[in-house]
Amino acid sequence: MLNQTPDAVRRITCIGAGPIGGGWAAHFLAQGYQVTSYLHDAAEYDGLMRLLETAWTSLESIGLAAGASLDNFNWTSDLAEATEKAEFIQESIPEVLPLKQALYKTLGDSVDANVVIASSTSGLSMTDIQADCATPARTVVAHPFNPPYLLPLVEMIGGEKTSAHTVEWTEQFYKIAGKAPLVMKKEIPGFIATRLQEAIWREALHMVANGEASVEQIDQAVVNGPGPRWALMGPCEIFHVGGGEGGMAYCLDQFGPALKLPWTRLEAPELTDELRNAMVDGCVEMTAGQDFASLSRKMNDGLVEIAKMKRRAKDQ
Amino acid sequence: MLNQTPDAVRRITCIGAGPIGGGWAAHFLAQGYQVTSYLHDAAEYDGLMRLLETAWTSLESIGLAAGASLDNFNWTSDLAEATEKAEFIQESIPEVLPLKQALYKTLGDSVDANVVIASSTSGLSMTDIQADCATPARTVVAHPFNPPYLLPLVEMIGGEKTSAHTVEWTEQFYKIAGKAPLVMKKEIPGFIATRLQEAIWREALHMVANGEASVEQIDQAVVNGPGPRWALMGPCEIFHVGGGEGGMAYCLDQFGPALKLPWTRLEAPELTDELRNAMVDGCVEMTAGQDFASLSRKMNDGLVEIAKMKRRAKDQ
Repeated sequence: MLNQTPDAVRRITCIGAGPIGGGWAAHFLAQGYQVTSYLHDAAEYDGLMRLLETAWTSLESIGLAAGASLDNFNWTSDLAEATEKAEFIQESIPEVLPLKQALYKTLGDSVDANVVIASSTSGLSMTDIQADCATPARTVVAHPFNPPYLLPLVEMIGGEKTSAHTVEWTEQFYKIAGKAPLVMKKEIPGFIATRLQEAIWREALHMVANGEASVEQIDQAVVNGPGPRWALMGPCEIFHVGGGEGGMAYCLDQFGPALKLPWTRLEAPELTDELRNAMVDGCVEMTAGQDFASLSRKMNDGLVEIAKMKRRAKDQ
Repeated sequence: MLNQTPDAVRRITCIGAGPIGGGWAAHFLAQGYQVTSYLHDAAEYDGLMRLLETAWTSLESIGLAAGASLDNFNWTSDLAEATEKAEFIQESIPEVLPLKQALYKTLGDSVDANVVIASSTSGLSMTDIQADCATPARTVVAHPFNPPYLLPLVEMIGGEKTSAHTVEWTEQFYKIAGKAPLVMKKEIPGFIATRLQEAIWREALHMVANGEASVEQIDQAVVNGPGPRWALMGPCEIFHVGGGEGGMAYCLDQFGPALKLPWTRLEAPELTDELRNAMVDGCVEMTAGQDFASLSRKMNDGLVEIAKMKRRAKDQ
């Protein structure tokens, strides 16, 4: 099957020209790829160009890959033409299952079976999307965060008929292409990042509904409180550092009982020994070789940078 | 009562020398105040000095206020001496109610009733803390985020016997002293920021407990996905921008049904017209005068800065 190594890919086709499809095109262009966008309707052209120009300003400022240029961009409203020479396809059409199924049926017949087709879907399952596709082994979910050219996350999972090789190949490809792929262990509604984000969002809605906080207070609480930390470390590493020399083990042994407190509407799971150890071992493994002093220096240095950045923005 | 205006305060006493009490001392010193720390035990001195030195490196890098100096720091293990000349007291002793009650009883008799005493408590209520205090009107909860010298949030609320004037005075004082005070509408367990943080944390624990994600995957999902946005905007403004020209109204009208989806273990509140309008009005008010283009530029510019910062850290 997939007869090309991930580092050999030069030509990418982005299907869909909305914020996600256009954002992917901008990302791949900045990484130096040849990109062809398929526009369902030529009328989407102006919006896509505006998106690419806005994105390019940001991307130039961060730094482009060697050879990256907007001159490497093409577009067409002819699907066959768009996919003809593609070595990788990123699909970002609307989240309507019958639309996706019809597209994958078409692509399944027309596109070389060695070419991976990755779907940006945030909620549909690849098992459903690939249902009518004659060559489903090379299809995979690859859900980005918006804007895809500034946030590196790509949550990945195959469908029932996706080959393990496709998942591995695509994970490798995204790493080469400057993304942070995350292959999920199980297909869960909302995947990982959206579930975490949705938990905050629902708690926020409850507070507004109950008159406990205003919209502005919720946002201020995040931006002036835990928010800057989340740009630097995830919730587990933050508590691992928060536990001082004792790390996550200290945190859980000390503050475990707080999980029983009504500190959010979300009920906590039982803190079994198994869960406690999974959290502790996971933190130790994740931060391998970094002791408390170096982790807390990393956190402080990052918060200093964010504080300076905010001061600059305010002074402007 | 409080006979001094908030901008006249020069001498601050920090009671407690742990990470929070010491962090407050560092913050006030960097803002140019005279600071006296009360150490329950002189043996805490070395740890406090290490904390102040670490903090000072960060604070110098961000920029000190005129006249700020570590020379403005004093310490003592004599409570009467520590509080004798205080014009503002920040209390950060352990979260043990009888300890706090005893302290506030002592301070209530010995400290001039015109001096505000603010408690860093993250979970106790001021109504309980001030129970045995003879002069409770000037006591108030003022909960910081750790480290208090890098994260500006201070969640504030009075107890039953706290005067409204004390809350207003202290809010004003913190603004002058470089903090971002947030006066809560109601006393709720965990206040606002911890509730939001706890919602994420519990969802993360559920995912690990169910084998749906590893510790490292949860952290990567946050840091490479929604995390960098939360350093710049709260969850409400993020969706307000995410809704494009239509803002929060578009988001709620379009994605409201997603609140019924099992995207986290936290059940969402009913999206009544009242809640919808509260969210929309709150966003419009909070972002007054900024249209979609300027909000999304602000977000993109911030994400670019964070991306550049991370690249620098990686290259080091």
